[in-house]
This record gives sequence, structure tokens and C-alpha cells, in this order.
Amino acid sequence: MKTAFQNLRRVHPLIHSITNYVTANDCANILLACGASPIMADDPEEAPQITALCAGLNLNMGTISASRFAAMRSAGQTANELAHPVVLDPVGVGASQMRMRFAGELLEAVRFSVIRGNFSEIRALATGCGGEKGVDTDGKAQVTEESLSDAVDFARSFSQKTGAVVAMTGAIDLVADENTAYCIRGGHPMMASVTGAGCMLSALTAAFAAANPGRILEACAAAVCAMDLAGETAARRMGPLDGNATYRNYLIDAIYHMTPEELEGANYEVRT
Amino acid sequence: MKTAFQNLRRVHPLIHSITNYVTANDCANILLACGASPIMADDPEEAPQITALCAGLNLNMGTISASRFAAMRSAGQTANELAHPVVLDPVGVGASQMRMRFAGELLEAVRFSVIRGNFSEIRALATGCGGEKGVDTDGKAQVTEESLSDAVDFARSFSQKTGAVVAMTGAIDLVADENTAYCIRGGHPMMASVTGAGCMLSALTAAFAAANPGRILEACAAAVCAMDLAGETAARRMGPLDGNATYRNYLIDAIYHMTPEELEGANYEVRT
Amino acid sequence: MKTAFQNLRRVHPLIHSITNYVTANDCANILLACGASPIMADDPEEAPQITALCAGLNLNMGTISASRFAAMRSAGQTANELAHPVVLDPVGVGASQMRMRFAGELLEAVRFSVIRGNFSEIRALATGCGGEKGVDTDGKAQVTEESLSDAVDFARSFSQKTGAVVAMTGAIDLVADENTAYCIRGGHPMMASVTGAGCMLSALTAAFAAANPGRILEACAAAVCAMDLAGETAARRMGPLDGNATYRNYLIDAIYHMTPEELEGANYEVRT
Repeated sequence: MKTAFQNLRRVHPLIHSITNYVTANDCANILLACGASPIMADDPEEAPQITALCAGLNLNMGTISASRFAAMRSAGQTANELAHPVVLDPVGVGASQMRMRFAGELLEAVRFSVIRGNFSEIRALATGCGGEKGVDTDGKAQVTEESLSDAVDFARSFSQKTGAVVAMTGAIDLVADENTAYCIRGGHPMMASVTGAGCMLSALTAAFAAANPGRILEACAAAVCAMDLAGETAARRMGPLDGNATYRNYLIDAIYHMTPEELEGANYEVRT
Repeated sequence: MKTAFQNLRRVHPLIHSITNYVTANDCANILLACGASPIMADDPEEAPQITALCAGLNLNMGTISASRFAAMRSAGQTANELAHPVVLDPVGVGASQMRMRFAGELLEAVRFSVIRGNFSEIRALATGCGGEKGVDTDGKAQVTEESLSDAVDFARSFSQKTGAVVAMTGAIDLVADENTAYCIRGGHPMMASVTGAGCMLSALTAAFAAANPGRILEACAAAVCAMDLAGETAARRMGPLDGNATYRNYLIDAIYHMTPEELEGANYEVRT
Repeated sequence: MKTAFQNLRRVHPLIHSITNYVTANDCANILLACGASPIMADDPEEAPQITALCAGLNLNMGTISASRFAAMRSAGQTANELAHPVVLDPVGVGASQMRMRFAGELLEAVRFSVIRGNFSEIRALATGCGGEKGVDTDGKAQVTEESLSDAVDFARSFSQKTGAVVAMTGAIDLVADENTAYCIRGGHPMMASVTGAGCMLSALTAAFAAANPGRILEACAAAVCAMDLAGETAARRMGPLDGNATYRNYLIDAIYHMTPEELEGANYEVRT
């Protein structure tokens, strides 16, 4: 993981995000914080050309529209042609038929390197059934120690079906390909009180993947560990008057100051 | 008011905001701060379905477009069918004929629970005449102690006409239905130096209303009091180098830490 | 420069920004910080009417779309008719043919008071050739002490061609009309680690220009000096845990607290 972050700090990959306007600023700033450069462009006419200039592509379905979907599809296909890593964040995919349809069409048209969402989003994507409590983590649909084995099997099987590394984040985070699963314990409950913690993680994942194109599973696990550690660092920094707005700044600041060596302190196990 | 906030912290309502991209992030974070969950979705195809999953709807006319207007109208009608509270924030309504027309069509198509704006916006909406100094508070068009009685009459009469609770915020805040008016004194001048203080209040109002559907007037007054108190708390926290960017964070942080009991310290009178 | 800032604090100009959704919030807050008022509106139907209410117009090509371009063109023409200053920020113009085409059409349809970008953006605009490293400063394409004379000639010549004051910002900033060039040394490397530092400067430039319509060159130089000084002030305020998210807040806070007198401490030379 240390190496994955060292590569990111060395390569400074340019990441194209087609993403929602709610958290776009935070995604851009966390990309800068980790050593990458952000570019956001969502007009279907220019999206593929922008992608071609970049080293990685991050597709985030928050505030999706027909136009932004078209940009995602063509940018995703361009990234596939150029063998650039592509991350899908299926924000709130269970919340509407339109999102489910767009997600399904993206999964057919684009080969994703990573699909990252919370448990209910990944489940909705895998089963085609919704039941979403907003775009933020549904407290009831968490991977627990009890359900961990089943969740690992589910993530592996969805990875096998899609060919993508599957990252399901929550109280326990899972990052899995069809063979191997990282079970990562970390982060902090405050992360659920900030809008865009998941969006930021997906952007970060695209950066790690772009800097480590041959090792997507490890890169994705490193991104999740980095975000978890940032969540812990930010929580330790909280003063008595600090709330979720300040925590958001601390999260990004923590990524800014994080060293590759710190990733060695991440708490994870690998199941094969 | 204390009860209204207790309900909000207990119910954790999911709030759908169709809102401008300038302050969407702050609106999402203040919803999380108060105990609600945010979802933003503005494509006309999915907007009604998203609304149906939620407990309240917040329609904010900043950076409005024909597409976002269509989403607002259909989401608003769905919310009406489901008896969910709907808040209208007529941002900058006097600034263009298009905004005036969209606002008029929304008022015809949707029954609003609350209409919240600054004095010049509410006046423009009520009279059909513009004269807007940006989207931020027009310093000349404030409710003062001298004009308070007239403003109360005006707010009541506009409430009678629209069926909505009318919240006009500024140096003195008024929250009125056709019979009763809360005159609330509080807040801080720094609130006018932050973009989106009004947008955040409207989002907060939707959350309070969704958690207190049978008591919209009190819920709306509680939201205004909460925002005023947050403005004061944030101002007390300001250090000598802190400016409006930091104040924005402190505002949201103050809502995050606010207890229902604190609302008992709000400074208001009720006129019937 | 002091006078230019005094005028801005006295006049409180209303600035219409048609800008990207990534940094719109920061642009609005920095406008409030400097004493201006922001309004953002990007629907082509209402854009010219909004512009007509304002004292200055800021056109920023980040996340541009066909619709936002149409709004820019018609708002720009309205501003020209009313003799309001118009600023163009050609964000990432070299990154796609679409952006290049839109920029070319804007340069034909609208007379700009100021064109502000980093060196690679201005060069792309002037030569019609791309080669963009994201929207953030391309480290390789900086004006250095060695290339300064050539860069001054280039900026002057592009100013002569376009009729606009040309502001090329980076390690050394140049603000030039066809005769006179301000070479400004200041700012801080941290500014490159915040998304939107350039966007904020363009918004600030529009505010300075709107408050000093007869002295656009000096107004633009004053805006660049103010941003550089804010970058230095923000850097001095950084604690050991502060990263780029906090630095962003400090930047805006620094503009909020800046006095016109502080601009007298700016480090610049004038070449005629």
C-alpha cells in the first residue's frame, strides 16, 4: 500500500471526474490533496477528448442527467480504448428507475476497473432492486462482523460478474476481486455526517488506480485505507466546537499531509 | 420549538432538494448537521420518484433552468399527493422575467407548506414586481421596527393568498400564517457575508417541517430561530483572522452541536 | 491600487458570474469577502437580463456546456451594450476542441475587458493550440525570470489583438495592455493546491473592474496583487495540521480582512 501511495505522489496523475455538483469541489480538492490533478468536464461533446488527456476517469452518478450520462458513456469507452482505469460510483442507484437504467447501461457499455459504493448501492446494482435511504449510508444496511463472510462472497461474486474490483464501504470496508478480499476496519462515524465522503473516496480511488494501473486491487484497497486513516486523523483533530463542516476540511487536510508510510498502519486482513 | 427540534433529531427525515449548484454542498451539510439526510436530484425524469422516497421537499430557484423547473414542478406535485411538506425558496425571483414566470407557475401547480425568502424576494413574489440587488439581502429592503406592523400584515395576507407559511428573513425575521406571526430577533450581520445562508435556512426549514408535518408554522419558526442562534454562536467563535469562509463552517458546526434546549433561548414574540 | 480597492469596498458592485459548478461557491464567497455581491445565473433566457442588473460580468469556461456557452455569449453582448466590464477566464481552453471553439466564438462576439488565465491557457487561446495539463497550473509552462521579457511582449501583443487587458498568472504574474505591463511577484505555492484559486481571482478581477470601470488595467493589477497577498497571508496562518482545504478558507478570509492600504505592500514593477 505504501508503494501505491508513493507512486501516486510521484506520478501526479490527471483525473477526469464526471461527477455531481454537490460535492465536485471537495472531490477536486481531495485529488489535489493526494497529489493528483483534477479536471471536471461533463459535456458529451468534449468528455471523451478530456478523458484522453488524463490518466484515470471517475464516473459519479450523483445529480445525474441524460446529458451527464451520455458524457459518462462516451468518456468511459474512450478510457477503455486507452486502457485507463475507470471508477464507477453508483450514488443512490436504488433511488430511481432512471439511475438503475443508466447504471445498467454503463455496466454494459464500459469495463470498469473499480465499482465503489456503500453496501446498499452495490446491492441495488447487483440485484437490480432499490430501497435507498438517501445517498448517504443506510444505517440498516451495513456489513457487520456477523455478515462479513456473506458480504465477502457477495463482493467476490459481483466482481466476477462485472470484471471490476468491488469496493463496498461502511463500518467495515470490503475491497474484492473474484479471488481476494481486503476487509478493512477503520474510519470514523463522523464520516457519515459529511456529504461527499463517499464521492471523495471514489475520486481518490481513481487517483490511486491511475498511478498503479497494473495493481488495481491493491490500489483500491490503499485508497480505502487512506480515507479511513484520514477519517481517524480528522476525528482526533476535532475540538469541542468543531462540527461536520470543519470535519470535512480536516478530512481533506489529513489526506494532504498523509505520508505513504502512514498507510502501513492501516487495519486490514486479506481473505483469499 | 424544543419539541420540533427533538422530533427532527429523532426522525432523521430524508429531504429532497432541487437546488442551485452554488450552495448545494452547504445545504447538504447543514441537513446532515441538523439530523436529516440529504438527497439532491434534479432530472425531471427521476425527480418525482426521488421525492416519493423522502419526507420533505426543498425547491430553491437559484441557478434555475427550464429543466430544473420541470423537475421542481413534477416533484412538487408528487409531494402534494403524498402530503409531504414542500418549501419554496424564490432566490432572486425579482431578477428576471423567467424566474418570475417559473415562480408563478410553481405557485399555481404546487401547494407550498412554506415560502421562505428575504423581504425583497417575498415582495417580488407577492407583487409580481422585481428590483433585485443580487440574490443576497438588499440592504434597503429590510423589515425594521418601524415597518414591522405593516410587514406582519403583508406576510399574513400573502400566507392567506398562498396557503403557505411565509418566512421573510432579514434583520428581523417574520414567520406567519394567516392568523399568527412570529417576529424573531436574532442572527448576526456576518450571515449576510456568506453565500447561501438563506439557502441553508430553507433546507433546514424543510427538515423541521418534514419532522413536524402537523405543525408547519412552529416548525418553520423553530428553523429560523435555530439558524439565528447558529449565526450568533458562529459569530462568538470568530477569531481575529477568521473571515466569511470560516464563518460559513462555524454556522454549520453550530447547527451540528445545537441542542433542542438551546432553542428555548430564542428571542421572539408571537402576534395574533 | 489602494484607490481601486477603496472604490470596490465603497461601491459594492453586483457581479454576474456564469461559471463552473466546481468552484462557484468559492467564487461567490470571495466576491462577498472583497465587498461585492454575487449573482450566478446561467440559463440563456435570463442571463442577459441578470447581467443588465449588475455592474460587471465574469465568464468562466470551467464545466462549460452548449447551454452555458449560449448564456455567456448573450450576457456578454448585453454587458458590452451597457459598457459593463467583462472578464473571460478560459479554464482549460486547450483541453478540447469544443472549448477552443467556444472561446474563439466568445472572442468574436464579445469585447472583453480582461482575459485572465494561467500561461498555458492564455497561450492556447492566443495560438489556437492546446496541450493542457488539467485545469490547474501546468508546472512546465510558467513565466520565469528568464522568459519574462518574451512573456511581456506576448501579453502585450495578445492585448493589442483582443483589446482586453491580459492577465497571465503563475509564479510570476503579468497584467498587460498593449503598452504597459505589471510584473507581479508574490503569492504562494499552496495556491496551486487549491481548486479554484484562478476562478476566484477572475471573480475578484470582475469586482475590481466593475468598481473601477475607467481604469481596467490598474483594477486588474490590483486584483492580482490582492490575491497574491491573500495567498501569502493564508500561508502564514497555516498550522502544522492545516492542509489545502483549510488553506482555501484562509485565502477567502484573508480577502475578507484585507485593507486597501495592504495593497501598497504588493511587490510589482511596471514595464512600459
